[in-house]
Amino acid sequence: MDVSVIGGTGDEGFGLTLRLAKAGHHVTIGSRIAEKGSAVADTARELLGGEAHVDGATNQDAATAGVVVVTVPFAGQADIYRSIKDHVRTDAIVVDCTSPLATAVGGRAWQVVRPWHGSGAEQAKAILEQVHPVRLVAAFHTISGGSLQDLGTEMESDVLVCGSDTEAKSVVGGLIEDIPNLRWVDAGDLSQARIVEPLTALMISINRTYKIRDAAIRITGRDAWGRPG
Amino acid sequence: MDVSVIGGTGDEGFGLTLRLAKAGHHVTIGSRIAEKGSAVADTARELLGGEAHVDGATNQDAATAGVVVVTVPFAGQADIYRSIKDHVRTDAIVVDCTSPLATAVGGRAWQVVRPWHGSGAEQAKAILEQVHPVRLVAAFHTISGGSLQDLGTEMESDVLVCGSDTEAKSVVGGLIEDIPNLRWVDAGDLSQARIVEPLTALMISINRTYKIRDAAIRITGRDAWGRPG
Repeated sequence: MDVSVIGGTGDEGFGLTLRLAKAGHHVTIGSRIAEKGSAVADTARELLGGEAHVDGATNQDAATAGVVVVTVPFAGQADIYRSIKDHVRTDAIVVDCTSPLATAVGGRAWQVVRPWHGSGAEQAKAILEQVHPVRLVAAFHTISGGSLQDLGTEMESDVLVCGSDTEAKSVVGGLIEDIPNLRWVDAGDLSQARIVEPLTALMISINRTYKIRDAAIRITGRDAWGRPG
Repeated sequence: MDVSVIGGTGDEGFGLTLRLAKAGHHVTIGSRIAEKGSAVADTARELLGGEAHVDGATNQDAATAGVVVVTVPFAGQADIYRSIKDHVRTDAIVVDCTSPLATAVGGRAWQVVRPWHGSGAEQAKAILEQVHPVRLVAAFHTISGGSLQDLGTEMESDVLVCGSDTEAKSVVGGLIEDIPNLRWVDAGDLSQARIVEPLTALMISINRTYKIRDAAIRITGRDAWGRPG
């Protein structure tokens, strides 16, 4: 699948790039500066070996992919979406991964602020839909960039996926399942991102308390998750 | 340990009563009407067999226990705390389990409202501290009353515990560990309840989507949790 990761030069985005490229997807790393995206893409290919398809592009070019994953800090999220909104395809699936950590306003990483739209994902959707309707899904909030980048270690985590487009959630769920040992759980409609996004801060709080780096979540109550029904 | 469960006639409270009494604790079920508390205590003793120590009392009498667990719907939470605040001991540990589900204002159980104090637990603390400082801990938000009441089935869940009093968290953690297969994770200070309490709504959303009843959470990233350090 043709995936781009805007913010793919950051920890979370680079980790997702590695995992998705390792699973055989063609991943384009979006960056404000195309050369930076390309340089990080080179690093990804070196880490993954010759088979991997990773390249770099400007955020605007990356935004034309079929699946556009956005992993940027909340402080810059609105600006990034404004800068790509004219480039996102009408049939694209956008995966927003941002969490409104209070670091965006000089606060603590284990605290959050409340976005005007309810969640970062809803803010993203509101900006993109100034141009045309989009299929937007929120995911990957409870997975650390470190775990994703540590290719030698299997993930031990579930990904909570929020969105109002069931098909889009299944497509993103398929990408998640391409990463070994990662499962996806349908968390409900996009407004559930108001509950799920702050879990990044909770994971950071737990990491801080226990002096670890990779606290994550598993959902119990069912042997298999994925697409409901 | 001498534990009372205010709201012990409700699903969650009754489930906690059964599990804690089964573990050997003396549990007092608090109710607005003492007779109702006593009747439900009779039922608990019948279910548990002759050894169990469960009795009923008014909320005010129950509030004098060493550990006071409060499991009431958010709509009535403030009133309940106002009604017991003069009865809580200065050395007591209060365990608040309420989640601000939108059902409190006629909304959906998979949605939440935002309490003025940030979380239900902080609201509880503010009311109790009109009288004297209290050791308040927030816990048990992601565990269903059904699972707790189903004594034949082991819990498959972690309990996220929030609070600013480390010793109080450990005492409550000890109670949690007395329930087979239940672990506790220190989620941080009491304000983390702003993130943890809405997880009740997230579990309800997942239950609804997958047509199950007992979605719950495990935290990964460490083999053992409990008291940090």
